[in-house]
Amino acid sequence: MKLYTYFRSSAAYRVRIALNLKGLDYEAVPVHLVRGGGEHRQPAYLGLNPAGLVPALEDQGQVLTQSLAIIEYLEESHPQPALLPAAPLDRARVRAIAQAIACDIHPVNNLRVLQYLTRELDASEEQKNAWYRHWIGVGLQAVEAMLAGDARTGAFCHGDTPGLADCCLVPQVFNARRFGCELAAMPTVLRIAETCAGLEAFQRAAPEAQPDAE
Amino acid sequence: MKLYTYFRSSAAYRVRIALNLKGLDYEAVPVHLVRGGGEHRQPAYLGLNPAGLVPALEDQGQVLTQSLAIIEYLEESHPQPALLPAAPLDRARVRAIAQAIACDIHPVNNLRVLQYLTRELDASEEQKNAWYRHWIGVGLQAVEAMLAGDARTGAFCHGDTPGLADCCLVPQVFNARRFGCELAAMPTVLRIAETCAGLEAFQRAAPEAQPDAE
Repeated sequence: MKLYTYFRSSAAYRVRIALNLKGLDYEAVPVHLVRGGGEHRQPAYLGLNPAGLVPALEDQGQVLTQSLAIIEYLEESHPQPALLPAAPLDRARVRAIAQAIACDIHPVNNLRVLQYLTRELDASEEQKNAWYRHWIGVGLQAVEAMLAGDARTGAFCHGDTPGLADCCLVPQVFNARRFGCELAAMPTVLRIAETCAGLEAFQRAAPEAQPDAE
Repeated sequence: MKLYTYFRSSAAYRVRIALNLKGLDYEAVPVHLVRGGGEHRQPAYLGLNPAGLVPALEDQGQVLTQSLAIIEYLEESHPQPALLPAAPLDRARVRAIAQAIACDIHPVNNLRVLQYLTRELDASEEQKNAWYRHWIGVGLQAVEAMLAGDARTGAFCHGDTPGLADCCLVPQVFNARRFGCELAAMPTVLRIAETCAGLEAFQRAAPEAQPDAE
């Protein structure tokens, strides 16, 4: 498998964690999101993924896109260790936590959105950072409530084994810290991120551990 | 089942389509997103869904959130008719199309984001509408490329039966039209939306057909 990735892309980071948790080898193909206006906007990459977004996974001659779709694919094609629980109601809970991050927080703070704010709406650096912290704050508070208010939360987001929701949580917490967000009101989020940080699968997936890290 | 819904919420619209396609009866509980600052921000609703977003589905005494997680739950708990194909690579494709809409387009144009633009960044009505059309344009062009460039596209997004991707596509096209987006460059998207519009499951899910329509 080939993973088109950028060290700091939190969507790629999610997939790297999932691949590592499942013990799957892959070739990392770096796609630089900044250099030369972004390699993801150049024809070579757009031919693979017309959305021009990272990550993409090549497997069995096909290119898969969208981090959560890729992780669900890995789950179906390599079921063990499972990243989703067995019961439909529990699976729905784990997917909802993952989507509360992947849909409600991340896209609003994506690089292209921040660029639009500064280029088209003349947002200052301060306004841009306030925007970023606002959506992480609102979004992670919702995740905290989902986690803290549910007995199914364990050492990880769901029970005592890492799964899909943890693959999303850790990269989001990484971003939150990078932008200096206030996280004290999110003790469950922080506790789980800390537990994940102790696992090799998460360590090897971290931005600073990537071959294209700067 | 109880569906907490707002007639114009495109995430709720997706779930209404899925429920109808599966022939499942549900009680619609309207949550007004504008009146009184938004019923979704009031304690009664936040107790059900701490994220304060619509939709939420109540089933078997539990509250499920996030539209795609809800639809996957319906798929697992009521497998027929299937909204996802059988093969993992095909399922990944359908999920990627759905997420290209649900993650990359919709959240950036969500009501709360538009409100932030005007209230915090002093965006004019014109700038707000340009933002809206920009992200729909970029996002639906990517979806068009995913659909037009793949032989698995049929009468619907994947083959000749409606599924998860169609549940997402139709509400997004509805929003695009509402905001006067230029859609001429997206013939496959338009053709599929037109086909869906002929089906009762989509007609009954439409905003104007809801009990809380205004």
